[in-house]
Amino acid sequence: MRNGIVQSIDITIATVSEPLLLESGRTLTPITVRYETYGSLNEERSNAILVLHAFSGDAHAAGYHRADDRAPGWWDTMIGPGRALDTNRFFVISSNVLGSCQGTTGPGSENPETSRPWAMSFPAITIGDMVEVQHRLVTALGIETLFAVVGGSMGGMQALEWVARYPAKVERAVLLATTTQLSAQAIAFNAVGRNAIMSDPRWNKGDYYHAEPPSQGLSVARMVGHITYLSSESMRMKFGRRIQDNDGTARDTEDQFAVESYLSYQGEKFVDRFDANSYIYLSRAMDAFDLAGSYGGLEAAFSSAETSFLIISYSSDWLFTTEQSKEIVFALARTGKEVSYTEIQSPYGHDAFLIEYELQSELISSFLRSRRITPGGR
Amino acid sequence: MRNGIVQSIDITIATVSEPLLLESGRTLTPITVRYETYGSLNEERSNAILVLHAFSGDAHAAGYHRADDRAPGWWDTMIGPGRALDTNRFFVISSNVLGSCQGTTGPGSENPETSRPWAMSFPAITIGDMVEVQHRLVTALGIETLFAVVGGSMGGMQALEWVARYPAKVERAVLLATTTQLSAQAIAFNAVGRNAIMSDPRWNKGDYYHAEPPSQGLSVARMVGHITYLSSESMRMKFGRRIQDNDGTARDTEDQFAVESYLSYQGEKFVDRFDANSYIYLSRAMDAFDLAGSYGGLEAAFSSAETSFLIISYSSDWLFTTEQSKEIVFALARTGKEVSYTEIQSPYGHDAFLIEYELQSELISSFLRSRRITPGGR
Repeated sequence: MRNGIVQSIDITIATVSEPLLLESGRTLTPITVRYETYGSLNEERSNAILVLHAFSGDAHAAGYHRADDRAPGWWDTMIGPGRALDTNRFFVISSNVLGSCQGTTGPGSENPETSRPWAMSFPAITIGDMVEVQHRLVTALGIETLFAVVGGSMGGMQALEWVARYPAKVERAVLLATTTQLSAQAIAFNAVGRNAIMSDPRWNKGDYYHAEPPSQGLSVARMVGHITYLSSESMRMKFGRRIQDNDGTARDTEDQFAVESYLSYQGEKFVDRFDANSYIYLSRAMDAFDLAGSYGGLEAAFSSAETSFLIISYSSDWLFTTEQSKEIVFALARTGKEVSYTEIQSPYGHDAFLIEYELQSELISSFLRSRRITPGGR
Repeated sequence: MRNGIVQSIDITIATVSEPLLLESGRTLTPITVRYETYGSLNEERSNAILVLHAFSGDAHAAGYHRADDRAPGWWDTMIGPGRALDTNRFFVISSNVLGSCQGTTGPGSENPETSRPWAMSFPAITIGDMVEVQHRLVTALGIETLFAVVGGSMGGMQALEWVARYPAKVERAVLLATTTQLSAQAIAFNAVGRNAIMSDPRWNKGDYYHAEPPSQGLSVARMVGHITYLSSESMRMKFGRRIQDNDGTARDTEDQFAVESYLSYQGEKFVDRFDANSYIYLSRAMDAFDLAGSYGGLEAAFSSAETSFLIISYSSDWLFTTEQSKEIVFALARTGKEVSYTEIQSPYGHDAFLIEYELQSELISSFLRSRRITPGGR
C-alpha cells in the first residue's frame, strides 16, 4: 500500500541570503536549501517536527513525488497519517544538509565569485553548520520552538547539536543509532572511503564537474560504507557463502559470491545519485563532530536543554554502538534530564533504524504522545 | 636483542618440475618454491615443523637475512633457540605459498609458454593447491611425517587442509585465529579490496608488469584489510581521535586524524612489497576455502586424522572469531580427536596471533612438549 500523502508533499527550495559564518571562520552565501514538508503547521506553530537525515540521505523522507516512483522517501515507514510521525497531527520538515548534493548548497554548487563549481574550494563544514542552516529554515517558516527533532546516525548528531545550540527551542529529541563522537574505527572506514575517491584519477583533486566523475572510487567507498551499515549476522542471513549465478562452487577467478555482487550493485547504484566531493565533505564533518570537545564536556553541552529525550540503539550496530548511546544516556541522567532509553534487539546492524520501523514506531509514538515534564520545571 | 640465528637461516629456491594438477582442473608447471629453514633435521627426520604464513606473509618467518635488516622475519618472536618453536630441538620450515609474490610461483611469474607474466591468465588456486606444493617440498626434503604444522589466519586454513589431506602425516596441528570458512562479512571485505585494485586504471586487467603497477588501488585494499586486522578497542587505544600534526582540531579539509595517517602509511608501505594480482588470487583462495564443503562435513574432514590439535582464538578478533574456532573444537571433539583450546583475552584483534607471543608461546611450548596420545590408539 502506498502512503496516501503524495499530494501533500511540499517540495521547496529556500534561499538563505544572509551570509552564514561557518565554524571554520569562513563565510558562505548564498545558501540554497532543499526541503520537503508533510502535514500542516497548526495555528500556534507548535507541532513542527524536524527530521534530520543521515550521511547519504536527502530531503525526500516520505511519500512519492510522482505516481510512478519506484520507491517512496527514505523514512516513509515512519512518516504519514497514523504513523509514528503522524502527519494528521504534526508538521514534519525534512531538509537536505549543507554540503550534500541533493538540492542544498555543497561542493558541487556554483561558487558565485567564479561562476564555477566550488569543488574542493568549498569551505569545510561541520554538523554545527548544518544545524545553523536548518535553524534559519525553521525560523523562516515562522517556527520558534520545535515539537521535536528526530534523527538517526548523522541525523542524530544534528539532533544532539540542535539541543546544545538551541536548548530552549527543542522540546523533544529522538536520537537513533547515534553518537557524540565517532570511534577511531569509524573514522578509519571513512578515511578509506575518501582515499578510494581521491585515488580515482577522475577525481582530479575534486575538479571533475565538467568531465567524467570518479565513479569507480565513489563506488568502492560506498561498498566499504555498506559493510559497516550491516552486521556480520545480517550478511550471513542474507547471503551466507552463496555463489552468484553458477553451480555453487567458487573455483574460478570470475566467480562471485552473492555478497560481492550485492556490494558491487550498491556501489554502482550510489554513484548515480551522490557526488564524490560531498562524500568527502560530509564524512569529514562526521569525523570532526565531538559534542564534548565543542562544549567542554557532555554535561555542559546538555546543561541548558529544556528537552525530553528518547534514545534508541540497536544491538548489532557495531558502527554506532549501544555503548555510545549509553554514554549519552548517562550524561543526560547526570544533568537531570528526562531520558528514555531502549536497545532494540535487531540483527540489522546500523541500518536497523531504517528497517526496524515497527518496534521504533511504538517507542516514538508513545514518546511523542506523552506529557512532557519540563526539565527544571519541577 | 637480536635473535642469534642469522647464520643458520637456509634460504632456498626449490623447483617442483612434475606438473601439478590444480583443484580447478588446470595443470601448472614448473613451480618454484621459496622457503627458509631454521634448526636442523634430526637423523630420524621426525622433528620437522612446517610454519604456514598468512595472506600477506612470506617465507621469511624468523631471523635476519643481513646484519643491517631493519626487522627480523614475521614470527621471529616464536621461532629460535629456546622459543616456542625451539630451533635447538626442531627443524622449522617456512615456505611462501603458491600464488604469492615473494619467490614462489604466482600471477607475477613468467608463463613458460608465452615468456610473459601470467597475470590474470594464471590459474585459480586454492588452499588445497598451496598444501600440495608444500607436500612436495616436504617430501623433497626427505620428510615423511611432520612433527607439527603451525599456522595463523590463512596459515591455519592450510594447517586444516594438511590434516584433511594427509591425515597420517601430521602429528600435531596448531591453529591460531583461523576458520574452516570465511564469514560473508570477511568475503565482503576481500571483495572491496579486489574492487579497489581492479578500479585502478593501472591495473589494466592485470597486465601491468611492464608498466606502473596499480599502487593506489592496492593501497586502498590494504587499508581496508588493516582495519579488519585490528579491533575497535586497539584503534581507540592506539589512536583515539588524535589529530596528526596540528593544533588538535579537525576543521579543515586537509587535517588528518592519526588513524588516517597510519592507514595511509600502511597502504603505501604495502605496495612496495606486494603484487596486486597476488592480492586478488590469494584473497579468492581464502574466500573459496570451505573445509566442510570440500570433505562432506567437518567430521568427515577430520575423521582419518592421526593428529593432536591446539587451537587458539583471540577475544577481540572479529574477522576470524572465537565462535569460528569453537566450531572446529566441537567438530574435533565429536570425532574423538585430542584437542586443546584456549581463547586468549587480547585487545589486538586478528593481529593478536602476531603480537601475543608470550601467552601463545606458553601454550604452544607446552603442547609441543606434551606426550601425544595417538588418536584411535587407545
